Amino acid sequence: MSKKVSIIGNGNWGTAIGRLLASNTMESSIFEKDVRMWGYREEFEGRILSDIINSERNNPKYLPGIHLPENLKAVEDICTLSDSDVLVFALPHQYIKAIEPLKGLVKSNCIGVSLTKGFIGAEDGDIDLVSRSIHRILNINVSVVMGANIADQVARDMISEGTLGYTDEDAADIVYKLFNSYTYRITKIKDVYGVEISGALKNIVSMGYGFAEGLGYCCNTKVAIFRNGFAEMRKFFKFFYPMATIESLFQSSGVGDLLVSCISGRNFKCAKLMAEKRMSLKEAEDTMCFTKLQGPNTALIVYNYLKRQKRTDEFPLISTVYRICYEDKGYDSILECISSESIEQ
Amino acid sequence: MSKKVSIIGNGNWGTAIGRLLASNTMESSIFEKDVRMWGYREEFEGRILSDIINSERNNPKYLPGIHLPENLKAVEDICTLSDSDVLVFALPHQYIKAIEPLKGLVKSNCIGVSLTKGFIGAEDGDIDLVSRSIHRILNINVSVVMGANIADQVARDMISEGTLGYTDEDAADIVYKLFNSYTYRITKIKDVYGVEISGALKNIVSMGYGFAEGLGYCCNTKVAIFRNGFAEMRKFFKFFYPMATIESLFQSSGVGDLLVSCISGRNFKCAKLMAEKRMSLKEAEDTMCFTKLQGPNTALIVYNYLKRQKRTDEFPLISTVYRICYEDKGYDSILECISSESIEQ
Repeated sequence: MSKKVSIIGNGNWGTAIGRLLASNTMESSIFEKDVRMWGYREEFEGRILSDIINSERNNPKYLPGIHLPENLKAVEDICTLSDSDVLVFALPHQYIKAIEPLKGLVKSNCIGVSLTKGFIGAEDGDIDLVSRSIHRILNINVSVVMGANIADQVARDMISEGTLGYTDEDAADIVYKLFNSYTYRITKIKDVYGVEISGALKNIVSMGYGFAEGLGYCCNTKVAIFRNGFAEMRKFFKFFYPMATIESLFQSSGVGDLLVSCISGRNFKCAKLMAEKRMSLKEAEDTMCFTKLQGPNTALIVYNYLKRQKRTDEFPLISTVYRICYEDKGYDSILECISSESIEQ
Repeated sequence: MSKKVSIIGNGNWGTAIGRLLASNTMESSIFEKDVRMWGYREEFEGRILSDIINSERNNPKYLPGIHLPENLKAVEDICTLSDSDVLVFALPHQYIKAIEPLKGLVKSNCIGVSLTKGFIGAEDGDIDLVSRSIHRILNINVSVVMGANIADQVARDMISEGTLGYTDEDAADIVYKLFNSYTYRITKIKDVYGVEISGALKNIVSMGYGFAEGLGYCCNTKVAIFRNGFAEMRKFFKFFYPMATIESLFQSSGVGDLLVSCISGRNFKCAKLMAEKRMSLKEAEDTMCFTKLQGPNTALIVYNYLKRQKRTDEFPLISTVYRICYEDKGYDSILECISSESIEQ
């Protein structure tokens, strides 16, 4: 029996990936043709967004100008997705609790795929990964798909690549078939955590890069910040998630996503504005109307975790981004992350 | 006795680093104050370049607008450098034979430091590293210093970082003291080959990035090319220089130098021009007056080597850059390097 595919989240990325998946399922023998997409009930210019999506075949609020295929169907009640064989999670990490109504309703062999970048702060100050949270809530196996993906470019069929991190081989084969296409090229790697951690940490690093850009620093300096940030991502793997492989950092979800975030990400742009105009985080967020900026929140969660572990000194870039965002530290303190050192091998 | 420091090469990078080293030796107890710098005898506006450097304290041909310290002395005869304790090589790799007059004249405990990026094609189609060539000619131990360093920015004391790859600990300590400063921050790593190979291969990858830029590709696509190129650098390590460490790729000489080359390097600019204006390599080089462009030559040497090893298919980016440069292959064939795959771990 062909598999039912559903997407949770109808924002910029959810809609772009919805278009891709609906195109891949159009003539598939494995998947049902229709792909369902759920989002919070909200209005756009006085009309219900899901109605607009279904009647006009576009999402004017989050992905304007992109035609959506007929077989991508917006749904209003998340519980109608409970019969899904593949559930794709494309919510900002702050809103992951939205899936709770599905608790106990989802098939036990349903394949979860998280596209959500970011950590979830646990109550004890620990870090929780989004894939683990989803697993805990719905009790399903969860793969992740991440990469250097500006949503609008994927939606316009420009060639991009993504990384599929998995634990279950059979699930991974299905997810690969669902996502891979000529324009969206997937690499599979048996490492959910590495892929996911990179996707969260890169938002912190890209803020460091943004501060440097806003201060008018030269290429050498900006690249040094990028480089130290990438090295801190690796160090974070080693100390805290030794099961994550360095291999993941070489994938689109690692160095690729970090680069695209530093070149043109929203966290980068927010940090650049802060340093350029000497704005606080709140002022910059208000100016840019970024209600779902993930970098500062991730920096806060990771910093608190590092503090508990007494390791903030070993992660100067992450710590400095936190302090600039939340403790009024000077923007140029970002230079402290560029250190001369010896590498122990 | 304090050590005599000399630089071979008075081009853009040689002069920038000469200024840095002369500033570091100014009040040193380890090094002689004066740093000598040799370059081919050449004229600028009717006068001998070395005379201009010594009398006017700047190098108008290769580093215009930068004041040079009194203790950086241009010399005309390379053989006067034979009493050096530290010899720094800053010649383009095509001109490395210029050091041959020093053969047999240099102290056996002289410390060599190569700043030269690129491979040297051996007659049998094999690849030779610059550090090995220097060692063979002068019979001295050679460290390397490389990184994400646009010369002009280093010369203007903008904060940059560099990587020191070494085999001899004692020599490395001395080189570290000679190069490290607040504005030029050095990381030491016991891996000459890894540092050097990255410095050569990044010029090929940055041409691939330049083709994508010239063709107007989006960020996702450009970053995918960067990412695949970085992964090919790693693969090149694994297959051909297993003694080189992956650690090097995380240093300024690895991912840092690759990034700065893709953002603003000369090879990137040449490739961009080729794709944008549909120019041949020769036309683009003539237009840009780049007589010492290293990317195409390195691509040629590496491609011939891969061909002998029957491994061109495993290095699609390197091979495609070669074919675009030398076999009139279409610029958009660079997309072939972006592949979907499974990672073996």
